[in-house]
Amino acid sequence: MSDLPKFVEFHEEGPREGFQFESKLFPLEQRRELVHRLADTGLGHIQVASFVHPKKVPQMADSEALFESLVPREGVAYTGLWLNEQGFERARRTRNITLTGKLSYYPTDAFCLSNNGCTALEMAERQRNWAFRYREIGLPIEVAYVLTAFGCNMGGPVAPSTVVDIVRGADAMLAEQGGRLPAVMLCDTVGWANPDAVTRLVGAVREALPDVRVGLHLHDTRGLGAANVLAALRMGVELFDSSVAGLGGCPFCGHTSAAAGNVCTEDMVFMCHEMGIETGIDLEALIDAALYAESIIGRPLAGHVMHAGSLRAHRHAVAA
Amino acid sequence: MSDLPKFVEFHEEGPREGFQFESKLFPLEQRRELVHRLADTGLGHIQVASFVHPKKVPQMADSEALFESLVPREGVAYTGLWLNEQGFERARRTRNITLTGKLSYYPTDAFCLSNNGCTALEMAERQRNWAFRYREIGLPIEVAYVLTAFGCNMGGPVAPSTVVDIVRGADAMLAEQGGRLPAVMLCDTVGWANPDAVTRLVGAVREALPDVRVGLHLHDTRGLGAANVLAALRMGVELFDSSVAGLGGCPFCGHTSAAAGNVCTEDMVFMCHEMGIETGIDLEALIDAALYAESIIGRPLAGHVMHAGSLRAHRHAVAA
Repeated sequence: MSDLPKFVEFHEEGPREGFQFESKLFPLEQRRELVHRLADTGLGHIQVASFVHPKKVPQMADSEALFESLVPREGVAYTGLWLNEQGFERARRTRNITLTGKLSYYPTDAFCLSNNGCTALEMAERQRNWAFRYREIGLPIEVAYVLTAFGCNMGGPVAPSTVVDIVRGADAMLAEQGGRLPAVMLCDTVGWANPDAVTRLVGAVREALPDVRVGLHLHDTRGLGAANVLAALRMGVELFDSSVAGLGGCPFCGHTSAAAGNVCTEDMVFMCHEMGIETGIDLEALIDAALYAESIIGRPLAGHVMHAGSLRAHRHAVAA
Repeated sequence: MSDLPKFVEFHEEGPREGFQFESKLFPLEQRRELVHRLADTGLGHIQVASFVHPKKVPQMADSEALFESLVPREGVAYTGLWLNEQGFERARRTRNITLTGKLSYYPTDAFCLSNNGCTALEMAERQRNWAFRYREIGLPIEVAYVLTAFGCNMGGPVAPSTVVDIVRGADAMLAEQGGRLPAVMLCDTVGWANPDAVTRLVGAVREALPDVRVGLHLHDTRGLGAANVLAALRMGVELFDSSVAGLGGCPFCGHTSAAAGNVCTEDMVFMCHEMGIETGIDLEALIDAALYAESIIGRPLAGHVMHAGSLRAHRHAVAA
């Protein structure tokens, strides 16, 4: 346990993941209120919405309005997601957004073709253009996402060496442009990870690129989310994407692996706190935000601590 | 990872936990069918039903009939639960049951008083009588359960030394009667465990009583079930109680910690297999049993792999 980090950073993805996933539309006021509540918990990064085509994702049609309705809290980065130049231009024109230079890589062609209509290699070339574009406007590259880094339903298992090659390639590409890759997010996009695979992949990337910060973006598709986070913590990983209340998943919307959200923020914050790891987050406030999210969505969400409660009240009652 | 066991044994608690928990009654035929399906997966221990007062738990009023309706499969232990002499006598008169000599201990008075109407010390004395009674009829003592071994809402946190004292006491008591304690189940009855606490408690019990097999009975109350299992696996623990489909819990039945089932059998079997640990269980057959359990209960259950599917089909498709 000696490798456990002292402090873990959670990047909240619930507001975007959660509502984007739903077939229904939710009033802007409710989504804004959720973002405000999340910002009050101590979370430093909140992904608010995406700038994608409103015909494809009607839930995100009012992303500009949502950002601009926020009363921003100092020290909180309200981030957004875009997939093409039009989306990026919309994001750039939006108030209250913290633009982040993110790159995206795929280890296999099949999933990349299905998501982006191009091969993994073509996608890597596009990232070179994005890096150049971001650099051009003075936006630093923060992170490279490696999608389906543990395997994918279409392309099968992914070898750690493949991921290492991708991260090395991204770092080399940025070096050509005079920069370096600060961080990589290893994504278990469709639930292929297991604790041993996490240990191996984090170890392989660390060994090859010791200066790159390694974070994990995990989904709880097959019930191993918390175990995968634990395996990562024990490798010293201190950066995770997560969703309040497990937003973005719905185990009750049919039997498809698409229906599983990110690991649940408050459950993982609870685990960290119980293990003596700090997060800077007020767990009780986060539980309240999770219950608010559930009240918006209007059906039970996947989070556990939000339903069972933390141990604080019980400890207080016993101590008193 | 060097302490990982090569083979892990799961004791299935779903049929008893699952139906006992429900307010509704389910036809005997369906419960029998579920037990049959579970017995076909390779599970060696299935807790079928309890012998408690039918007025208290109407769902278990026909436990004798359920056991006696089974077509037993060789090599499978169909076990039952009883809490008093009347229940034990009912179990003894029942066909197809494998009687198991179990003892139960509590680390704190409050929870014990609420569950059994006696203090923890009085409960320990009762176990002496049970041990004597079992011995009298030639039933070997198999295991001592330590309830709320990680803490309890009523009594607060439990120190590992308290649990070690209980296990030592049980072993000494059995030694007086000419036996020894073969195994202990450390129970996280109400969701107070975390991975570090699992590591510490398993380590403490092992160190004090190296000849006693240590198993874990974990609930997924606060979303750490899989992480706690992983922590235990990494301590070499190779015995777990679990429930198919996560039966016994219902995150959708109100916001109480009582509504969380055991760790989900097929999700944990999936984790073991993905980590190269054998279980003797056919995961695909177990997923089918989980889906059958869901169809009986009539609402979505907490299991994940049962909804997302295993990775087998995807691996086959990619290989072909």
